Amino acid sequence: MKFIENGTVTSPKGFKASGVIGSVKPSNTIKRDIALIAGDVICSTAAVFTKNLVKSSAIIVTQKNIANGKAQAVIVNSGNANTCNADGEEKALRMCELTAKSLGIDKTDVIVASTGVIGQPLPIEPFENSIPILAEKLSQNGGTDVAEAIMTTDTVKKEAAVQVEIGGKTVTIGAVAKGSGMIHINMGTMLSFVTTDAAVSSDMLKAALTEAVEQSYNMVSVDGDTSTNDTLAILANGLAGNSEITVKNEDYRIFTDALTALCKTMAKKLAADGEGATKLIICKVNGAKTMADAKGAAKAVICSSLVKAAMFGADANWGRILCAIGYSGCDVDVTKVDVAFESKSGRIDVCKSGAGVEFSEELAKEILLESEITIDVSLNDGSGCAEAFGCDLTYDYVKINGDYRT
Amino acid sequence: MKFIENGTVTSPKGFKASGVIGSVKPSNTIKRDIALIAGDVICSTAAVFTKNLVKSSAIIVTQKNIANGKAQAVIVNSGNANTCNADGEEKALRMCELTAKSLGIDKTDVIVASTGVIGQPLPIEPFENSIPILAEKLSQNGGTDVAEAIMTTDTVKKEAAVQVEIGGKTVTIGAVAKGSGMIHINMGTMLSFVTTDAAVSSDMLKAALTEAVEQSYNMVSVDGDTSTNDTLAILANGLAGNSEITVKNEDYRIFTDALTALCKTMAKKLAADGEGATKLIICKVNGAKTMADAKGAAKAVICSSLVKAAMFGADANWGRILCAIGYSGCDVDVTKVDVAFESKSGRIDVCKSGAGVEFSEELAKEILLESEITIDVSLNDGSGCAEAFGCDLTYDYVKINGDYRT
Repeated sequence: MKFIENGTVTSPKGFKASGVIGSVKPSNTIKRDIALIAGDVICSTAAVFTKNLVKSSAIIVTQKNIANGKAQAVIVNSGNANTCNADGEEKALRMCELTAKSLGIDKTDVIVASTGVIGQPLPIEPFENSIPILAEKLSQNGGTDVAEAIMTTDTVKKEAAVQVEIGGKTVTIGAVAKGSGMIHINMGTMLSFVTTDAAVSSDMLKAALTEAVEQSYNMVSVDGDTSTNDTLAILANGLAGNSEITVKNEDYRIFTDALTALCKTMAKKLAADGEGATKLIICKVNGAKTMADAKGAAKAVICSSLVKAAMFGADANWGRILCAIGYSGCDVDVTKVDVAFESKSGRIDVCKSGAGVEFSEELAKEILLESEITIDVSLNDGSGCAEAFGCDLTYDYVKINGDYRT
Repeated sequence: MKFIENGTVTSPKGFKASGVIGSVKPSNTIKRDIALIAGDVICSTAAVFTKNLVKSSAIIVTQKNIANGKAQAVIVNSGNANTCNADGEEKALRMCELTAKSLGIDKTDVIVASTGVIGQPLPIEPFENSIPILAEKLSQNGGTDVAEAIMTTDTVKKEAAVQVEIGGKTVTIGAVAKGSGMIHINMGTMLSFVTTDAAVSSDMLKAALTEAVEQSYNMVSVDGDTSTNDTLAILANGLAGNSEITVKNEDYRIFTDALTALCKTMAKKLAADGEGATKLIICKVNGAKTMADAKGAAKAVICSSLVKAAMFGADANWGRILCAIGYSGCDVDVTKVDVAFESKSGRIDVCKSGAGVEFSEELAKEILLESEITIDVSLNDGSGCAEAFGCDLTYDYVKINGDYRT
């Protein structure tokens, strides 16, 4: 398996994409905000969505459209979430209709997604104007325009692609994602679209996506808020020519491992670009009684506001890490817990058997000033392990969210 | 029932207190940091503690000491949590011994509590030096020195007292509390000590405390982190002369209502002085299917980082409130939810039946610029109601916690 340079959703065979400045938010006249991904042929599809009871109308429409496991296009906008609007479903359906008409496909083969402010009516004119243009502009180089168009408070485009051999054929999987705030574990993600030229049945696609999400998007938290619009959809068109994956065989395993690696990379990109974040925080937990305990402990650490603020300050305040593990609800013997910090500047043990050890504050500071920090937690009580991905809590998080809407 | 002016833990008959600068943190030479509360006579006692698996050694010792429902003194320090230290229990026991010796009481009748940094050995010298002085300085005006001595990042002293008639006798209940960060629902609180001259059995004291906590300290969140040291203890000496409350009779109800009102006042003080906070946020939920749903929804709203940041920015971003209710896990019909903001500048409806309504942004801003904001949520689906107490998320929260330890 290898990651492709400049990989994106149009890296797999048979996918084209485009993005335009549609001014969904009237004040936006500089950034692409409506994008289209189109398959040359009909695709198998699977998706996971937010578990929030408050759901975007886009999700309600998409869930109906993909119930048959088939889709051919994705229409997506930033700037307005189309959530909590009385006419939201009607608008989302209209987005599908416009897309289907421009592409000459069925309107029920369209995935629709929106991200932005909640509770403001979605203007439909930008879509009426932009969708025909998007269809015209579809290109094999268009993936990166999608990555731009779905950004909200994101500061960097998030895209990647991997290649793997399946049954002698080269299979490519590409992804774009957006998400910066309102990101929390136990949801699909913010928005992410994955394309592949692998031949995979929709059932196996669903199974592979579920496995991948458990170790990637479901282990990310930026701020503990579960969004109303989270959607992660995958489209597989079969153009790589492998024999279709319809059961959990060796090909399924290779495909799922590659998809998981891709999703983990995207999850780290989301965490590293968390609103206001200056660093990526990875918490690795090993030695837990069960994998669920490992996951719970890792998540509690990266979700703790106090740990996050300490990481911002490059302060080796390991007591807050023990505190978070202590309230995580996981079955942990706190007298066995070891904690170390690690980054490219080195590694330092700060806690052994639940109590502090003497350590060099200078070295700790040096390690914690890097932009990617691993908090290494050994529970010494079993073989469960897990990784969770988060970021530091900074002044800029507050600034970004103190006046986002106006 | 009435609140007393300048009320504190020495307002009830038969309690004296004192506080000194003990320099538990060697750098502290200006603020009281060790305090003593002493009853003239042995008291009934009850307490609730953090649910964190990682617990201060002070809690472990206190739990043993009050197992018989009796106590006569409280020794407490700030500057060091005495948590995650190999010799923590030994040090906590030593604090009790020193206190007992200075007061001429039994060492098992002492409640010990600590708050401050986790994982740094507690120096015992400050206690050896200070406890005899504290015993000498005990005074009926000393309550306010306790309120000061337990402050860490708190910016104001938190104390209050209420008076109520029980069986023709005037009963007084006084309280001090500290807590600013690492405050979350489902724990005792940070540190709070309540004294009363009412005659109440330790069983009834426990019942009354549990009822009061459910509506007060357990409905506060500053940052979602559950501390390792939370302790709320109550001492009742019976000197008011009422006939002892030993069953849940009318006297019990009067006492419990007064205690609840006092604890709610203290809870609001904690939330309003949350680390970096500029305003108190109260979320009132009514019309829930059950009281548990009302509590869950109210807590989710005041815990949401996005809601908290919006309140800091005086931004009427009600979509985030719906979002938080949606992921709260409560049984809510989102199409029935109404939301309004209220403060002393007025009241404004921003959402009806789960969708936005037009409103004056100017009036909303004016309302949200006040220092005490109520978020009024009507679920229109039953009769459950609850109130939760939180604060806004500000630059200063990050500043305070980015480098607290060093």
